[in-house]
Amino acid sequence: MALLIKGGRIITATDDYVADIYCEGETITRIDKSIDAASLKKNDVEVIDASGKYVFPGFIDPHVHIYLPFMGSFAIDDYESASKAALAGGTTTLIEMICPGPTDEPFAAFETWKSKAEGISAMDYTFHMSVVRFEAAVREQFKQIVDAGVASFKVFLAYKGALDLSDESLFAMMQMAKKLGVIVTAHCENAEAVDAMQKLLLAEGKTGPEWHGPSRPPAVEASGVNHICTFASLTGAHVYTVHTSCEDAVRQAEAARSRGVKVWIESVAPHLVLDETYAARPNFEGAKYVMSPPLREKKNQQVLWNGLASRSISTVGTDHAPFRFADQKVMGKDAFTKIPNGIATIQERVDLVHTYGVVPGKISLQAMVDSCSTKVAEIFGMYPKKGAIQVGSDADLVVYDPEFRGTFSQADSLSKVDYCAYEGWERRGRASVVTLRGEVQARDGKFVGTTGRGQFVAREPTHG
Amino acid sequence: MALLIKGGRIITATDDYVADIYCEGETITRIDKSIDAASLKKNDVEVIDASGKYVFPGFIDPHVHIYLPFMGSFAIDDYESASKAALAGGTTTLIEMICPGPTDEPFAAFETWKSKAEGISAMDYTFHMSVVRFEAAVREQFKQIVDAGVASFKVFLAYKGALDLSDESLFAMMQMAKKLGVIVTAHCENAEAVDAMQKLLLAEGKTGPEWHGPSRPPAVEASGVNHICTFASLTGAHVYTVHTSCEDAVRQAEAARSRGVKVWIESVAPHLVLDETYAARPNFEGAKYVMSPPLREKKNQQVLWNGLASRSISTVGTDHAPFRFADQKVMGKDAFTKIPNGIATIQERVDLVHTYGVVPGKISLQAMVDSCSTKVAEIFGMYPKKGAIQVGSDADLVVYDPEFRGTFSQADSLSKVDYCAYEGWERRGRASVVTLRGEVQARDGKFVGTTGRGQFVAREPTHG
Amino acid sequence: MALLIKGGRIITATDDYVADIYCEGETITRIDKSIDAASLKKNDVEVIDASGKYVFPGFIDPHVHIYLPFMGSFAIDDYESASKAALAGGTTTLIEMICPGPTDEPFAAFETWKSKAEGISAMDYTFHMSVVRFEAAVREQFKQIVDAGVASFKVFLAYKGALDLSDESLFAMMQMAKKLGVIVTAHCENAEAVDAMQKLLLAEGKTGPEWHGPSRPPAVEASGVNHICTFASLTGAHVYTVHTSCEDAVRQAEAARSRGVKVWIESVAPHLVLDETYAARPNFEGAKYVMSPPLREKKNQQVLWNGLASRSISTVGTDHAPFRFADQKVMGKDAFTKIPNGIATIQERVDLVHTYGVVPGKISLQAMVDSCSTKVAEIFGMYPKKGAIQVGSDADLVVYDPEFRGTFSQADSLSKVDYCAYEGWERRGRASVVTLRGEVQARDGKFVGTTGRGQFVAREPTHG
Amino acid sequence: MALLIKGGRIITATDDYVADIYCEGETITRIDKSIDAASLKKNDVEVIDASGKYVFPGFIDPHVHIYLPFMGSFAIDDYESASKAALAGGTTTLIEMICPGPTDEPFAAFETWKSKAEGISAMDYTFHMSVVRFEAAVREQFKQIVDAGVASFKVFLAYKGALDLSDESLFAMMQMAKKLGVIVTAHCENAEAVDAMQKLLLAEGKTGPEWHGPSRPPAVEASGVNHICTFASLTGAHVYTVHTSCEDAVRQAEAARSRGVKVWIESVAPHLVLDETYAARPNFEGAKYVMSPPLREKKNQQVLWNGLASRSISTVGTDHAPFRFADQKVMGKDAFTKIPNGIATIQERVDLVHTYGVVPGKISLQAMVDSCSTKVAEIFGMYPKKGAIQVGSDADLVVYDPEFRGTFSQADSLSKVDYCAYEGWERRGRASVVTLRGEVQARDGKFVGTTGRGQFVAREPTHG
Repeated sequence: MALLIKGGRIITATDDYVADIYCEGETITRIDKSIDAASLKKNDVEVIDASGKYVFPGFIDPHVHIYLPFMGSFAIDDYESASKAALAGGTTTLIEMICPGPTDEPFAAFETWKSKAEGISAMDYTFHMSVVRFEAAVREQFKQIVDAGVASFKVFLAYKGALDLSDESLFAMMQMAKKLGVIVTAHCENAEAVDAMQKLLLAEGKTGPEWHGPSRPPAVEASGVNHICTFASLTGAHVYTVHTSCEDAVRQAEAARSRGVKVWIESVAPHLVLDETYAARPNFEGAKYVMSPPLREKKNQQVLWNGLASRSISTVGTDHAPFRFADQKVMGKDAFTKIPNGIATIQERVDLVHTYGVVPGKISLQAMVDSCSTKVAEIFGMYPKKGAIQVGSDADLVVYDPEFRGTFSQADSLSKVDYCAYEGWERRGRASVVTLRGEVQARDGKFVGTTGRGQFVAREPTHG
Repeated sequence: MALLIKGGRIITATDDYVADIYCEGETITRIDKSIDAASLKKNDVEVIDASGKYVFPGFIDPHVHIYLPFMGSFAIDDYESASKAALAGGTTTLIEMICPGPTDEPFAAFETWKSKAEGISAMDYTFHMSVVRFEAAVREQFKQIVDAGVASFKVFLAYKGALDLSDESLFAMMQMAKKLGVIVTAHCENAEAVDAMQKLLLAEGKTGPEWHGPSRPPAVEASGVNHICTFASLTGAHVYTVHTSCEDAVRQAEAARSRGVKVWIESVAPHLVLDETYAARPNFEGAKYVMSPPLREKKNQQVLWNGLASRSISTVGTDHAPFRFADQKVMGKDAFTKIPNGIATIQERVDLVHTYGVVPGKISLQAMVDSCSTKVAEIFGMYPKKGAIQVGSDADLVVYDPEFRGTFSQADSLSKVDYCAYEGWERRGRASVVTLRGEVQARDGKFVGTTGRGQFVAREPTHG
Repeated sequence: MALLIKGGRIITATDDYVADIYCEGETITRIDKSIDAASLKKNDVEVIDASGKYVFPGFIDPHVHIYLPFMGSFAIDDYESASKAALAGGTTTLIEMICPGPTDEPFAAFETWKSKAEGISAMDYTFHMSVVRFEAAVREQFKQIVDAGVASFKVFLAYKGALDLSDESLFAMMQMAKKLGVIVTAHCENAEAVDAMQKLLLAEGKTGPEWHGPSRPPAVEASGVNHICTFASLTGAHVYTVHTSCEDAVRQAEAARSRGVKVWIESVAPHLVLDETYAARPNFEGAKYVMSPPLREKKNQQVLWNGLASRSISTVGTDHAPFRFADQKVMGKDAFTKIPNGIATIQERVDLVHTYGVVPGKISLQAMVDSCSTKVAEIFGMYPKKGAIQVGSDADLVVYDPEFRGTFSQADSLSKVDYCAYEGWERRGRASVVTLRGEVQARDGKFVGTTGRGQFVAREPTHG
Repeated sequence: MALLIKGGRIITATDDYVADIYCEGETITRIDKSIDAASLKKNDVEVIDASGKYVFPGFIDPHVHIYLPFMGSFAIDDYESASKAALAGGTTTLIEMICPGPTDEPFAAFETWKSKAEGISAMDYTFHMSVVRFEAAVREQFKQIVDAGVASFKVFLAYKGALDLSDESLFAMMQMAKKLGVIVTAHCENAEAVDAMQKLLLAEGKTGPEWHGPSRPPAVEASGVNHICTFASLTGAHVYTVHTSCEDAVRQAEAARSRGVKVWIESVAPHLVLDETYAARPNFEGAKYVMSPPLREKKNQQVLWNGLASRSISTVGTDHAPFRFADQKVMGKDAFTKIPNGIATIQERVDLVHTYGVVPGKISLQAMVDSCSTKVAEIFGMYPKKGAIQVGSDADLVVYDPEFRGTFSQADSLSKVDYCAYEGWERRGRASVVTLRGEVQARDGKFVGTTGRGQFVAREPTHG
């Protein structure tokens, strides 16, 4: 089996040129101004006409939840639904968060999470390993997990009593991360501050979803970013602030970087396009828009786009954490603190960034590729296997039609979530063809491939 | 008894003019261009010639330790020695930190501390109440302490297991502070970070006093300032960062202030004039210069002076924590972590600020008065009883000779500490006459007054 | 003639206490808890009951235009109308800008401006001297003007070809200012940038008042602030940025201050309460709201209030530049560049700051007094003659009724302008009695005094 | 002719892997894990053993002066000496500044400069076109220059009366740049401020080279950066600040970038490794170290390295402006203002960055390649022809021996300058083989190739 993609505008993190791409087996084997199919002396070459279209490296989502016991429920997607949705949207690799409970054995958790994907996922996948406990007895397990190919940790400063880690453990964990060359991704909100604010608001009868935001204002996140960067400066560990949502938080990370701290900034698609007014929608509809950090004042969106344009912000993920409205979000009817957090976006990310970032000129096509693919691969040790269009790279390619016009809609969604947060919004652009290691897995927004084809991407630490 | 101070240049936080000051009883009762002693129809008027001299309001030290069980020892001064030293240096009122242990009853601690001063102190005094525990059962005691006239709390983010408070308690305490109108003064260094760094350094055999600084670098303090300001923004409490030592920490406070946080910044004299090289002096002499936050890179000094000049930094205290070198500092011979922290400066503060701030033009005389007296009184609810030269204010006055030339020396010290951190340094200026509520307590650097005259200054909350 | 003001809450820049104030002749001669009128042995003592009211020091407006040939017209007020309006609003002293043309002789201009006030003004006044030319031949005249009592210069970076000064002249002028101890107040917008933007917009057919703002965006002002602060750092001159309108500009000044530049920041009342949407009002009504720097995005207002609260911003002026709508503003019907710039606010300033700053808790009463009176006097060398309530100060006092409820209205205006920019807005508070050097000049928003009583306040340089 | 480079560690701006590179003609035609020379069926394949060595893309110097009439003299190199020196040091392409006088015709200047290189240069070259006049009559010539392949302008805010441009012309030029998609590179120091400071210092008898720095302190440069960024925000033009030397300037550019300004930052090698103490060397030796912006306080070096590490600073150039000490620098014996500005570094740049940046871990190998090659190519429209190791790119390659140990020395220099600013400094690493479009031009620090092989790199605008 081979693929020949002809006449597309190849867009990489730095480049924009017209050429043909030839893939044999799972790999890109040739890129040339013009490759004649006849000359290839192969029978089974599928020729894809990409003229008038972009050809992107397969997109990578650095921040996804699929199997997620959380707040008394489980995220509703499984690897089948999530990977189909992702591929339909142009994403060929994802990094899922392993989120064990505070008493779970870390290595067992890693195996559990991996088992949910193996033989099921239609896309490639890898993991961030959450460290929710770090007493001496379990530390060796984290080394085993790294040996098994997981080169990034996740830490929650938030979620008191569930996922948060003491400062003592945090410091020790970051020392190990530095030693192993593992990057530490961090959810930066102070757990105690949030907990206290929640109690305060509930005590005042402020129970609706519109109070979720005020329970964790920008200062809480900015302070968390400052905190992790401080520990990074002390331990030398490299850090990555996930779903950075607001100007104050971005500025703290940038200031730390100026002082020499090795810190990368992730944004997620919901914060780029949604604002706090959504969470204040009447009739509990706001619950659809509850995530953490919360949706912010609109002015923060431009800060995030500017950061992506200048590449001060490195990546765009989703924090896809899929919960149904009808029977899950509704659990927080009487208290916003019980609304499962998350806005399903795995399928929409790429088109949102194109429609609301590239089309109006907020970021370039190159910045889109960099933040949604290349930089993710580089930071997390998958480049140039992933995130690149070059000879030898995996043949994960997205032929993208920038002229497509439509709307976002739940009707098109392959996720199991029962609403689309962007319902009816204008959509410009769509993945025409999506290949995973040389095979077409999606066309025109529909999954057309094989489940179970996805592989675990083992990664080596690169942040020593 | 009455005092007539004639012909001095009266220097206040905003002013500079020549006039005579008349004090009857304990109070300033008249300020006039010229007051004729003969016209006063009083027999016992002491006339003080202040011509060619400055007349300052009595200086106030916002940050002093006298009774201090700490790190396995006790600070060596008592109220007699400390108040004599302070008065000799021109300081007429001090605010001492009450620092109970984690299991002490707060109100009993307040009474203990107060008992150490009553009938003994030669100067006026008041207290900051440290909150080292805040479980529900003890909270009422803090209200009683406020009712008893202590309108400021102190919190330590530092000193793991000894003085530090959990974030949960911190938040609750700040909520109470806001409600009561009490300002929260804060030692801003993250306890866990320091603890981990200490262990790390000791494990590497880095045991000398020169490693005290690296165990708590600027990022640790700046992060602490950010943390307390974040909690201030959430609770509405007013905060005051004590002994702010470096640019990063100052900038964090200023940035918070720009966002609307009510935060005042204190510097202390040692950080204004000493730098990290002192703590690296050979033969364990560096131990004399161990305090927390530690002495910093020299470039930070100009940042502090600039902040005082522009009044972005509000006050200059001392963090006077007196430990002898011979038998106390030496306890840390084998591990810097066991060196009692502190640099005795209560007697030298005013002259240091004059010599190294005013004389070279780094700050104005007005900024000196503001930061060493007036602003302290304003922030801590003692103005205009203290900190002012106006009719009705306490007759706490310092006639100051700017032409005095000498050196700082242990020989002149009235503190019980066995060394002077500024030994042999040039000294320009000296308090010629120091009055406390209308009586002369010191002359020309010597105590000439009455011990036991000092009164507790009860204060009402003003930060509601 | 004498005044006894009884029972008021005396509010100063630092204080809040209840006492009686006695004024004899033009001066405050006594402040006491209680002064018995009978005991005064004076016949003509007017007793003013201030119970339930505030007593403020007379307010000072640091930035006023009265005689102003500008943009082909003349500002419409004269000293009679302007001083009556100011007094009715609680302002007892103003600083007018002398704005000669580029070929006028400086000293002659000073005399012209002074002649417009002498014998006419009902309030005290002094001047900033604009330097719009500085070739060697005229420099001596500026020394004469300083000798005559004008201790502050004004420079325009804006207004190409009319008021702007070359960088070469600016540098030389600031060198002289430093030498003389004169502070340099500066309008900080780059003339060339504005000129180019204006041409660009007009060429695109963008002629309405709503385009005035886009012709001089925040970056233009922030760059001007940076420029003047750079020259201040080189020459050592002290600078004061007038009508600082937006966050970017404030941050540039604060950053310069952190580096040791002596810079003070002025805000003006229109920027505190109006935003850019006013200048976009239909039917050319936006022209009423055209001033420079222009009204800004609303978010900048909170930045200005925060700056006043923390005293990072020193003063609140008006930039009162009164032009009628009917026959003056309308001159710019076809091109926003021809709309005379200015929003008359001299009468409303104090009440606007009280209603929209103090009442909602954005700033304290003390910060109001500081920014609208005391700090102006300090910076410009009039303290404590002006700006203070203390024995010996001028008896300029404002008895203020915080309980007054009304609206702002053109009907109450004593200025000659034919509209009120704040028409119909809620107004909380009013000056009940306003005294100038011991005589009542206004009551309950009406002028009741004597024109011609105003005196020139000669000032000595204090910024050496 | 063909080249086969075997077994090297290929280092790109993002990558580090071992592979063989095959070049046929002037182009890289194949990159593979292992390429067998025998299999190539070519006779004339030169095989280069790169095992144990790095293979970099040819380095590019974005900021070079060769033909330079300046300050009454001419820079001493010509294209032969400069290109040999550059190639010996690993630089295969340079961008020279065309610097005409204020009355020269722009297009004629372009032709003059080009003629100095054609047929002479041993390396590839292109130009930045300085705009030192921009009256309407000459504007069309700049379009012709762009059409001729020069896609970048240069502007000097500095050099009063010689190279500086009025703000009016600057604005118009940037409008044209935006329209054409041309990036504006800028020397950011305010000409008037420098001129005034120079006069001031000379008048005080401060004539030595040590006063060059104080005549143009950091505030002057930071203000210039702010100025160009302000004009960029108004015109939409993309800007690039050349030889950015200090923290204040870097921060201004970063802050502008945060606000959405398209700005790239260049550093130059001298500022990375030399500090102001060099310019203060006795016996006029300081003159060797006079350049503009001047060498700065040492603390700025770390800021620059941090910026390169985080890629906030995009490039490292040299500002190679070669003047002999014996007969040129000496022209400023009596006045530092007459010392020709410049520190010859074209040959040393790559090794300095390796020795003082990469070896001590301040930046990664990838950041070195990015800043010294790839990013230059990207910003200036030469990527991936230049700056890349990929199939189709020019076969400009540097086989680099990181194990080489030596010292920098004038003895090894191929420039005509009579001193080496880094004489005797430790040197770690050296280019073993340097190829230009498939031919070896230098080996082991010696030029071994053909002069006249260099080509003009025509570039198309990419900043629209």
